[in-house]
Amino acid sequence: MPHTFNRRDLAFQLYEVLDVEKLCDSLRYQDHSKEIFETLMDLVERMAEELFQPHAAMVDEKEPEFVDGRVVIIPEVKKALDAYIESGLPAASFEYELGGMQLPHLVTHALGFIFATANVSTSAYPMLSHGVANLIRAFGNKQQQSKFLKPLIEGRFFGTMCLSETQAGSSLADIKTKAEPQDDGSYLLQGNKMWISGGEHDLSENIIHMVLAKIPGAQAGIKGISLFIVPKIRVNDDGSLGERNDVTLGGLNHKMGYRGTVNTVMNFGENGGAVGYLMGEAGKGLSYMFQMMNEARISVGIGATSLAYTGYLHSLAYAKERKQGRSLEDRDPSSAMIAIIEHTDVKRMLLQQKSYAEGGLALGLYCAEIIDKKLIASHAGDNEMAKQQTLLLDILTPIAKSWPSEFGLRANEIAIQVYGGYGYTRDYPVERFYRDNRLNHIHEGTKGIQGLDLLGRKITQHDGASAKLLMTEIMKTIAQAKQIESLTACVNDIEYHLNALLKTTGMMQSEIPNKGISAYLANATLYLDAFGHAVVAWMWLRQAITATMKLPEAINEADKNFYQGKINTCRYFMTYELPNIKAPLALLSQTDTQCMDFDVEGF
Amino acid sequence: MPHTFNRRDLAFQLYEVLDVEKLCDSLRYQDHSKEIFETLMDLVERMAEELFQPHAAMVDEKEPEFVDGRVVIIPEVKKALDAYIESGLPAASFEYELGGMQLPHLVTHALGFIFATANVSTSAYPMLSHGVANLIRAFGNKQQQSKFLKPLIEGRFFGTMCLSETQAGSSLADIKTKAEPQDDGSYLLQGNKMWISGGEHDLSENIIHMVLAKIPGAQAGIKGISLFIVPKIRVNDDGSLGERNDVTLGGLNHKMGYRGTVNTVMNFGENGGAVGYLMGEAGKGLSYMFQMMNEARISVGIGATSLAYTGYLHSLAYAKERKQGRSLEDRDPSSAMIAIIEHTDVKRMLLQQKSYAEGGLALGLYCAEIIDKKLIASHAGDNEMAKQQTLLLDILTPIAKSWPSEFGLRANEIAIQVYGGYGYTRDYPVERFYRDNRLNHIHEGTKGIQGLDLLGRKITQHDGASAKLLMTEIMKTIAQAKQIESLTACVNDIEYHLNALLKTTGMMQSEIPNKGISAYLANATLYLDAFGHAVVAWMWLRQAITATMKLPEAINEADKNFYQGKINTCRYFMTYELPNIKAPLALLSQTDTQCMDFDVEGF
Repeated sequence: MPHTFNRRDLAFQLYEVLDVEKLCDSLRYQDHSKEIFETLMDLVERMAEELFQPHAAMVDEKEPEFVDGRVVIIPEVKKALDAYIESGLPAASFEYELGGMQLPHLVTHALGFIFATANVSTSAYPMLSHGVANLIRAFGNKQQQSKFLKPLIEGRFFGTMCLSETQAGSSLADIKTKAEPQDDGSYLLQGNKMWISGGEHDLSENIIHMVLAKIPGAQAGIKGISLFIVPKIRVNDDGSLGERNDVTLGGLNHKMGYRGTVNTVMNFGENGGAVGYLMGEAGKGLSYMFQMMNEARISVGIGATSLAYTGYLHSLAYAKERKQGRSLEDRDPSSAMIAIIEHTDVKRMLLQQKSYAEGGLALGLYCAEIIDKKLIASHAGDNEMAKQQTLLLDILTPIAKSWPSEFGLRANEIAIQVYGGYGYTRDYPVERFYRDNRLNHIHEGTKGIQGLDLLGRKITQHDGASAKLLMTEIMKTIAQAKQIESLTACVNDIEYHLNALLKTTGMMQSEIPNKGISAYLANATLYLDAFGHAVVAWMWLRQAITATMKLPEAINEADKNFYQGKINTCRYFMTYELPNIKAPLALLSQTDTQCMDFDVEGF
Repeated sequence: MPHTFNRRDLAFQLYEVLDVEKLCDSLRYQDHSKEIFETLMDLVERMAEELFQPHAAMVDEKEPEFVDGRVVIIPEVKKALDAYIESGLPAASFEYELGGMQLPHLVTHALGFIFATANVSTSAYPMLSHGVANLIRAFGNKQQQSKFLKPLIEGRFFGTMCLSETQAGSSLADIKTKAEPQDDGSYLLQGNKMWISGGEHDLSENIIHMVLAKIPGAQAGIKGISLFIVPKIRVNDDGSLGERNDVTLGGLNHKMGYRGTVNTVMNFGENGGAVGYLMGEAGKGLSYMFQMMNEARISVGIGATSLAYTGYLHSLAYAKERKQGRSLEDRDPSSAMIAIIEHTDVKRMLLQQKSYAEGGLALGLYCAEIIDKKLIASHAGDNEMAKQQTLLLDILTPIAKSWPSEFGLRANEIAIQVYGGYGYTRDYPVERFYRDNRLNHIHEGTKGIQGLDLLGRKITQHDGASAKLLMTEIMKTIAQAKQIESLTACVNDIEYHLNALLKTTGMMQSEIPNKGISAYLANATLYLDAFGHAVVAWMWLRQAITATMKLPEAINEADKNFYQGKINTCRYFMTYELPNIKAPLALLSQTDTQCMDFDVEGF
């Protein structure tokens, strides 16, 4: 596929750095093998190339429209999604008993990555629907599962998350949507929801909305929030479609990017009430939703990475083709121009992108593997192991979401720069990637929220158990790297900066009693970026270890270059990127409260 | 005007930090006064608000179109520009004898800034035309001046810069456009030019293209390039318009942002040859053009700043209005929500923007004042002083262009974040500012080119004379700041980082004999950013000194808050921003060549 992803790199991540084949040793995944995975990759690569990529620019240019209360989307989107559904992929990660393929999440996330590199907007629909299915699988009762889960897994129904309202975005405690209990056990919902991706369309037979609402009399704040299944079209007990529910399209949001994913204002119950079904216990809606949200955060991170990745590959291809100028040593103006990839500054821009794109991918897939390890452990009844994996994923989730959003966007900015003026035109896709990627720091918890989550919750939770576990994992890698002499410089760099991070964290925590929690959290966003860089440095060290060990047995020149490129990019990251965390860590270690104390009249 | 600029801050920069009134002591500007400047500001503020801002979103939505060989632009653009021309402002900076107002460049740049905050696209037309007029003023002969300069100054003609060709962007040495000498002393030009802003439109009676071309037989490279005046419509000796020249519109470039400024492909001489007139000497075209380019670079920087500035003010207003969540101490979910400006992370994002926007403005206006000082000195026959101002402007130009392009874009990225999901929609202007600002690192010399210019030329030229002069100026400010006890921390910070910058520069230069010039320049872009941060820290120190001195005599609470805000923002810049240069300087001091040495097969 032209310039969207690198199959060699994906194989490196899956089979060499991670060990997806080892997952197949487990009871859960025993039926699978590399052969199956590769066949699926072939299939997905072909679908992405033939059906997803060709309309990516088109759906941006001609975004979904609101016509007579309906959403009109260019037909190419449905054609691609129909093929996706036809292939059975919506069921990929679900258990056999649910009609699924029971594939490792590591593999399904890799497949999702391929689709997203080709067309991030269109691939958002199945991603959301997968989350909804997973939520109903986890918390829905038998009846709810039989009505809604099967068609979601079959891809006949799509799903949405209805959390935000115009007045309540980051502050979900303030939602106003009400759910009035009915005699038959159902509820009637009334309220308006904002920023609903995939809220209305004709891409699927039905749309299942997961709606946060308050039951009258519930307590104020998040403990009063419950979660409801609200179908666009009601589903009869036999599974057939019934009457239209009272769910209407309020309008479309017109975004800067990500335009192919229709984003809507949804009105529930404008004509009496939308029928909804309570999931699990009342008042626990937000905690249930967070399962989906956390899953979505990993996917958002992988989406951000996919944009960085394709931007990198596009600019790399352009840099090899485009000729401009001469080397600084060449003083003969009549000599032939060289490819811009030969100019050091362009190389630097490519290396920077490579380090972000491949580093982000390594992180996203690492998280996916944790999900698998957790499922394998649960399946095997190893609760302690399952708990550990949960703790590890907990602390990595805000990083996995925010780091690729921050640095993937930076990568896309640089991809434009490599193209020069051409990159600034809509004739080339890099400006679109840049517009698309700007979303990722906003949805599924803003960057500020991720920072608070990391520093205010994940670092300290269970007496620091998540943080300790993460450090143990990182230390294992460092110990391994110490066995390889050529990685000494990288090991020294990461150890030095990890120590600074740990020391800073300790100093910040020790000041909580004096300065208070607000001061502790004042620069949480800076902490998030710094922590993320340390984590991705670890991801690069892991890749460098593998590459160094594989280098001697490289099967050909291309493979040798591939491994050497990995090793050199690790070195780049340690030298050019990681040291940038030093200044913010120094600032953080002082629990600086200038921003908090700044008098707003001074703006 | 709603949220586009802050008149109080502009007055602070012009009358308190800089001293525009003192310029009026000179022979050149003796007729002017603060009263005149303020009257002009009033006029421009009103025009910007009533005629420029209202169509800024509209011209982005409905960009110029190519219809039957012509460019169709929404009528609001011409209406605004007609009013601008009617006001006489195109003549603002020109000398009396040319029919100008002979206003200080400091003032005209401030006026340009106001227009750009309201509508950066529409205000680009006069900016370009001003540059063309200035070029003809400097290098055109009598006849050329009488034919083309007067109507440009009157605003009847607009102008363009025709440098790039599809195969020659950064590498202008490789242009192919040919200029064949004719018996009457004119030339016939043939060739295609790319990225021509304002290349075709009906906004003015005529368009004067400044075209770089090669005369057959000229030597290879930049020494073979000459500069030609090529009018869209030929001008008769009596000044009346003659026949259409052989200049045709090849097509439009469709950009991500800055859409209101039509960007064209221009074909010269497709039907025999476009009549052009050689400016100055053959072979010196590029050096002439560089006068315009350097002027344009200051304007590009101010344009980038204007986008950062308006984005900052928009997000500030939004943050004051938008209510969301509660303080971290408030555990009562039924309490009222607070304005998001009260959240520390939002405050930090506003402070960051403020430091970039107002720091960028201070830098742009400082450069404008240097232009005035140079003109005053020339006027007074003080050649030594004029030369010094040239040297100072030389070294600041790449910074003035690139720093606001880099950090202004970052500011616009953050403005979107303050708005959250709303900022990502086209219902709010911040996403447009972000798209607009992405251009600024590309045109008028890419960021890479600016880095090479700074490190490879400006730092070392005339035995380091420019660099020494700049350091002398910075040291003067530091000496002044040392008299103010409350600024001690800021002084220490800037001294520390300046020393690091100087030491790094010295170490890099000392390695040239060993490692070569390519290694020396390998990380020029990182050097550019670091150098820029040091320069803007200086700009903040200058503002803090003035604010500290003025604070005791503040006339009211608002003024007091304004000064205190400046002082606190200086502190923010020194603490949160300046230390970020430490890591890149450490890298630079080692003349690291990883990127240069990276084997392209490893990508």
